[in-house]
Amino acid sequence: MLTFAEVQEAREYTAAALSRAGVVLTPAERGEIEVADLGLGELERTGLQLVVYVNTERVCAKELVLRPGQTCPEHRHIGADEELGKEETFRVRAGEVWLYVDGPATPDPLAVAPRPEHYTAWHQIVLRPGDQHTILPGTKHWFQAGPDGAIVTEFSTRSTDERDVFTDPDIRRITVVEP
Amino acid sequence: MLTFAEVQEAREYTAAALSRAGVVLTPAERGEIEVADLGLGELERTGLQLVVYVNTERVCAKELVLRPGQTCPEHRHIGADEELGKEETFRVRAGEVWLYVDGPATPDPLAVAPRPEHYTAWHQIVLRPGDQHTILPGTKHWFQAGPDGAIVTEFSTRSTDERDVFTDPDIRRITVVEP
Repeated sequence: MLTFAEVQEAREYTAAALSRAGVVLTPAERGEIEVADLGLGELERTGLQLVVYVNTERVCAKELVLRPGQTCPEHRHIGADEELGKEETFRVRAGEVWLYVDGPATPDPLAVAPRPEHYTAWHQIVLRPGDQHTILPGTKHWFQAGPDGAIVTEFSTRSTDERDVFTDPDIRRITVVEP
Repeated sequence: MLTFAEVQEAREYTAAALSRAGVVLTPAERGEIEVADLGLGELERTGLQLVVYVNTERVCAKELVLRPGQTCPEHRHIGADEELGKEETFRVRAGEVWLYVDGPATPDPLAVAPRPEHYTAWHQIVLRPGDQHTILPGTKHWFQAGPDGAIVTEFSTRSTDERDVFTDPDIRRITVVEP
């Protein structure tokens, strides 16, 4: 659970980071920045901030903003009925991102998992501004921002957050804000 | 037809415009900037410059860069077999864009069509940084940059340029560079 003050502070951080990177948001978009603590209540360690530009039946695009060391925890995207799972490309705009996917584990990874017992993918891909990586459906993945935080643009098929499968059983995709 | 010098000059213009807007390209991407004169041989009036970030079976994302007054001419995206036509969202990053789509004609439009006999869609949408508009398959559309040029990020389904239907019968999507 987050307090409204925490949400407001995270929105201000996000708007300022995007502005520094030259990304222009409309006033409506600034007021709708999504702050996701994923139910763990430790936003500065686990969670992320999002601006959703578009999410139709076929196409989705977002900016993901992470604080220094903040982690988007391990998950994968699965399909339903005749719809394939979500395919997403992460392109780094600012900062450094340590992305982990299924595959041979990288020795001495740069990231420290916030709750290591719930992280299983350790194949490291380091992304700096201009670098990108495509995640196919079903691939376990997670990422952590380096010491300066990060901005990641995500290009994907339709986003269906409710279908994300997180490795950590305590995670809830829907953020609850204290009444 | 374009000369190699024209292509190089347009690539340099594009890389500089993106850099000013805070968009980082890799060296490989800078060398692969697509310069499209659409076969008319009057690039500064009709054509555009493109950086394709990703184009898979399901998702495509690009930066479109236009010079002051440069026009991406009228076209629509159609489907084939079981694939729907391309759906695209234009989000303006820098400059002003005058977008025209099917619909009631706007009186006194801001743009001047470069070859007016081949332009039929006159419903005007003015897009400034942070503004965006989604074009559904089959919708005729074209756009012109305002006096400072423009950068437009396009989020879309798979890009199948060869299937674009241009209103102007002299247009060819493939650019020929003088040998």
